[in-house]
Amino acid sequence: MEELLERLLEECRPFTGKGRVADYIPELAKGDPDALGIYVIGSEGKHAWAGDCRRPFTIQSVVKPILLLQALLDNGAEFVTRRVGVEATGKPFDAINAGDQALDSGNINPMVNMGAIVMCSLIYGRSYDERFQRLLELTRRLAGDGEIGVDEAVYRSEKSHGSKNRALAYLLKFHGLLEDDVEEVLDCYFRACSIQADCRALAHIGAVLSNRGRLPASNERVFPAAMSRYVNAVLMTCGMYDGSGEFALRVGVPAKSGVGGGIMAVVPTRMGIGIFGPALDRKGNSVAGIRLLERLSQELYLSIF
Amino acid sequence: MEELLERLLEECRPFTGKGRVADYIPELAKGDPDALGIYVIGSEGKHAWAGDCRRPFTIQSVVKPILLLQALLDNGAEFVTRRVGVEATGKPFDAINAGDQALDSGNINPMVNMGAIVMCSLIYGRSYDERFQRLLELTRRLAGDGEIGVDEAVYRSEKSHGSKNRALAYLLKFHGLLEDDVEEVLDCYFRACSIQADCRALAHIGAVLSNRGRLPASNERVFPAAMSRYVNAVLMTCGMYDGSGEFALRVGVPAKSGVGGGIMAVVPTRMGIGIFGPALDRKGNSVAGIRLLERLSQELYLSIF
Amino acid sequence: MEELLERLLEECRPFTGKGRVADYIPELAKGDPDALGIYVIGSEGKHAWAGDCRRPFTIQSVVKPILLLQALLDNGAEFVTRRVGVEATGKPFDAINAGDQALDSGNINPMVNMGAIVMCSLIYGRSYDERFQRLLELTRRLAGDGEIGVDEAVYRSEKSHGSKNRALAYLLKFHGLLEDDVEEVLDCYFRACSIQADCRALAHIGAVLSNRGRLPASNERVFPAAMSRYVNAVLMTCGMYDGSGEFALRVGVPAKSGVGGGIMAVVPTRMGIGIFGPALDRKGNSVAGIRLLERLSQELYLSIF
Amino acid sequence: MEELLERLLEECRPFTGKGRVADYIPELAKGDPDALGIYVIGSEGKHAWAGDCRRPFTIQSVVKPILLLQALLDNGAEFVTRRVGVEATGKPFDAINAGDQALDSGNINPMVNMGAIVMCSLIYGRSYDERFQRLLELTRRLAGDGEIGVDEAVYRSEKSHGSKNRALAYLLKFHGLLEDDVEEVLDCYFRACSIQADCRALAHIGAVLSNRGRLPASNERVFPAAMSRYVNAVLMTCGMYDGSGEFALRVGVPAKSGVGGGIMAVVPTRMGIGIFGPALDRKGNSVAGIRLLERLSQELYLSIF
Repeated sequence: MEELLERLLEECRPFTGKGRVADYIPELAKGDPDALGIYVIGSEGKHAWAGDCRRPFTIQSVVKPILLLQALLDNGAEFVTRRVGVEATGKPFDAINAGDQALDSGNINPMVNMGAIVMCSLIYGRSYDERFQRLLELTRRLAGDGEIGVDEAVYRSEKSHGSKNRALAYLLKFHGLLEDDVEEVLDCYFRACSIQADCRALAHIGAVLSNRGRLPASNERVFPAAMSRYVNAVLMTCGMYDGSGEFALRVGVPAKSGVGGGIMAVVPTRMGIGIFGPALDRKGNSVAGIRLLERLSQELYLSIF
Repeated sequence: MEELLERLLEECRPFTGKGRVADYIPELAKGDPDALGIYVIGSEGKHAWAGDCRRPFTIQSVVKPILLLQALLDNGAEFVTRRVGVEATGKPFDAINAGDQALDSGNINPMVNMGAIVMCSLIYGRSYDERFQRLLELTRRLAGDGEIGVDEAVYRSEKSHGSKNRALAYLLKFHGLLEDDVEEVLDCYFRACSIQADCRALAHIGAVLSNRGRLPASNERVFPAAMSRYVNAVLMTCGMYDGSGEFALRVGVPAKSGVGGGIMAVVPTRMGIGIFGPALDRKGNSVAGIRLLERLSQELYLSIF
Repeated sequence: MEELLERLLEECRPFTGKGRVADYIPELAKGDPDALGIYVIGSEGKHAWAGDCRRPFTIQSVVKPILLLQALLDNGAEFVTRRVGVEATGKPFDAINAGDQALDSGNINPMVNMGAIVMCSLIYGRSYDERFQRLLELTRRLAGDGEIGVDEAVYRSEKSHGSKNRALAYLLKFHGLLEDDVEEVLDCYFRACSIQADCRALAHIGAVLSNRGRLPASNERVFPAAMSRYVNAVLMTCGMYDGSGEFALRVGVPAKSGVGGGIMAVVPTRMGIGIFGPALDRKGNSVAGIRLLERLSQELYLSIF
Repeated sequence: MEELLERLLEECRPFTGKGRVADYIPELAKGDPDALGIYVIGSEGKHAWAGDCRRPFTIQSVVKPILLLQALLDNGAEFVTRRVGVEATGKPFDAINAGDQALDSGNINPMVNMGAIVMCSLIYGRSYDERFQRLLELTRRLAGDGEIGVDEAVYRSEKSHGSKNRALAYLLKFHGLLEDDVEEVLDCYFRACSIQADCRALAHIGAVLSNRGRLPASNERVFPAAMSRYVNAVLMTCGMYDGSGEFALRVGVPAKSGVGGGIMAVVPTRMGIGIFGPALDRKGNSVAGIRLLERLSQELYLSIF
């Protein structure tokens, strides 16, 4: 396996030149466009890796499935579905009109920013500090890494360049879909996006989702199997922004990308995969990362279709 | 299996009362709202059924994956992807603005009407009559039923109430995405939607898609495995209109519904399923049919997630 | 007056270089980009002119206020207002979504194509031939020119490149806002847009509208004063496509432009003005023509504000 | 004149029953739905009135033309036009997508909330307190009433229920159209909307605009004539929200309405009119107020068309 990963990584590395590092906040613009790493954890617990797989980066939107899991654990599927819905929006992740119909129909996808902000408000806790701590604990457990923390520089950068997210949150509040103080909710959201991880952590999270909610090695249950089906289904239809359809064709597994360059992929019953490649395509997905997953899918017949 | 199907069908039959028969064209409004049927064909060729599974109905949008297959067979995946794209639109299937961004970006989903109309124009043939005959031949082969034909009354009804589809087609022509005569292309499209099938036929089509392009019993190849992955992936993200996300959660398999009450579901490597239940929910999907698939998925662990 | 017109025309002629001749149909692309003409008719009947003021061109959208007048004469203001409404759309004249809210609210502006197509269907007549003849008669009377006819080459060009208008018309039909055969209605619309006029004709039409519905010299009444207020008000808010706001600021009088290069302006109680200048800005208005009207407005204090 | 006003007011009073008092903030919901008043000030300085014409109310959106004047005085027409544009949006005044095209094209109408918020940021001043004081001074001068102040209860109510306006402001900031601190700008905007006036004050403002920028009695100049043409033109095309087209037909003069029930109308060269009638139609305009203006326009031939 390691040999295969090394070979494919070298084959795909030139694709890093086809993308650009995210620059909507200054801190992210500092990313290394040439970096590329992959880490694979089998459902039964075997590890394999190649490239820059232990380099830290902020998970950004990869936190969305974790937010969804925490919201599901705290409120149950029925409540969450009624609050954020599950249909694709057909719009960019931060579109102010992602919710045109959605705001009326009460259907805001949990994989776009509006839905993720609502999910922050659904996490239980007496304060937003407590809510974030609970989310961080879940992240650490899913990632198999108790050391995981927040990249403070990115967090501050997100917070001071967060006008679009503030617009989205106030729009939610206007429509009665957000009750708490906007700045408090967003602070939790900005912290969540700034959690620092590496390929290994993402692979571990994917492995739990592939293993129906149980940790890969110990088989200890973190969440019910039904919730992993819920999250995987949502990732399949909208995990890769408005490139989700093409990703389903080319790779064929549930996955979530972040503008920090990370991709967390789930191969149901088989494995979790973590990718790092900060050079992004125009939709916000790692160019070389998707290519690497496509090649791996071809070689190992990973597509679930 | 038959016993299970009988039991679930009786359990789900009351759900027929929660929907309404499509009435946008007079002929469809004549459908029996209480009807419900299911047919299952395993990838290896075993059959099972229950209820109104041999009652004929028009396949309507279930023809879209067949149109896609014919377009793929005639032009290859790269060309088709460039012409119709694969991203979810987040809009109703006949939305005039389904293509707002799409028409600019050249990305029109093959599961919404605009994309399906483009696919009619991609089928090879010296005339639209020949194109339709080739589509009909493919449908018969996939359905394992050489007798399949067109419901002439529905076809005439579609054709004389087709203003919305004409608007969509002329919009495509204006944007340079349709070169042929609009009425000729639409005649082919209206015929395609009016093809008459039953649950058995849909189950057979699903079985070929589940069997990676080979006929269930004989294992004879109809199309390459890569094309079944292509079609299944598209069905997963947008086969059930703007209820695709919820269907992925509740059932978890690629499927396509039609306003005639049919659903064609694909359980990769395992089986194809045909459903008939003309009482539809507000999104245009069979109410009792979805419930029946959800229950079957729970009982037989069909979800691919 | 003539001296002033000559002077301003020479001053504004360089602006012709800032625009482009319409080329959405081949016939229009043949227009002379350097042409510029102006014709003024006082409400009491005095004529003055300069430049290419007798060169023939197709009136295109300048026919919209005439269509509106004919619809008002045949149906009364209350009925017409209910069918096409009067609010600005904030969208380009041929936008497929000009009617997003409009189609629901029954409010389609008569100055955008959708509204103009509806108005063709509101004209009285046993056939669309008769309807068009009645419209042509009204145009001749308003223009003070019994020889006015159709430019057959432009008409055929419009008809064979009319996909966008067909899309708009079928959308209207789908929403129940157009009952007649789409091709018949559009044939009338295409003929109407292809009526051939010159600056003198447009000035004469404007003079009737400025003179509260009476012919400038004879004072003979063509339509009631209330209808001239209706048409002038509609022109003020949306006569210059999505450049109407800026035109109100810079010139300050009701006016209608066409992609053939014509502008018909109404200075209430004072005069009608006809302009010809086929080099258009991006919004479809004559660049030099608007500049000429702006200068004339400054010199003669024409703004009604 | 007074007799005519009394007669028309009694005739129109029943129309108050056709509307509803604004209730988007609690303070406004306390308005008296049966109130109706009118005040007229001729350009030369004569006063006439009827009904509840000295009852105080908050001017709300009627402050928008004053904001526009202050922005024009501080920056000149060219700069302001480039920043907020002048085209109708075809959308409700607080639509989050009022700026879909606008935000790209840099064209946000000064009569919708987004445009008005931008104008607050264009007023000169070392602090937002100073900016608001300058606006208040201009308002007092235009209104001929040095006592005019802010309704503190409405201001606090606006501020604590301002989620939609916050969403609009952060969206502007995201698009680089607002540089200052959002809460500071909005505080100025909320104060501006909460300025307390009566019919007399609005009539006086209208009289200055009708008198080309000079005070009605003294003829003292407050702003250049070109600015009154600018403001009147903008009011004509979009002063009455998305009822501006119908208002142009029925009344035919530039005007601005506010959800507090006020209307400020300008009859160029003749008079200014102030209306108070808090029962609003669905578009946010005073029902009885518009009817009263329509009747007055018919009786006194006020339409400028």
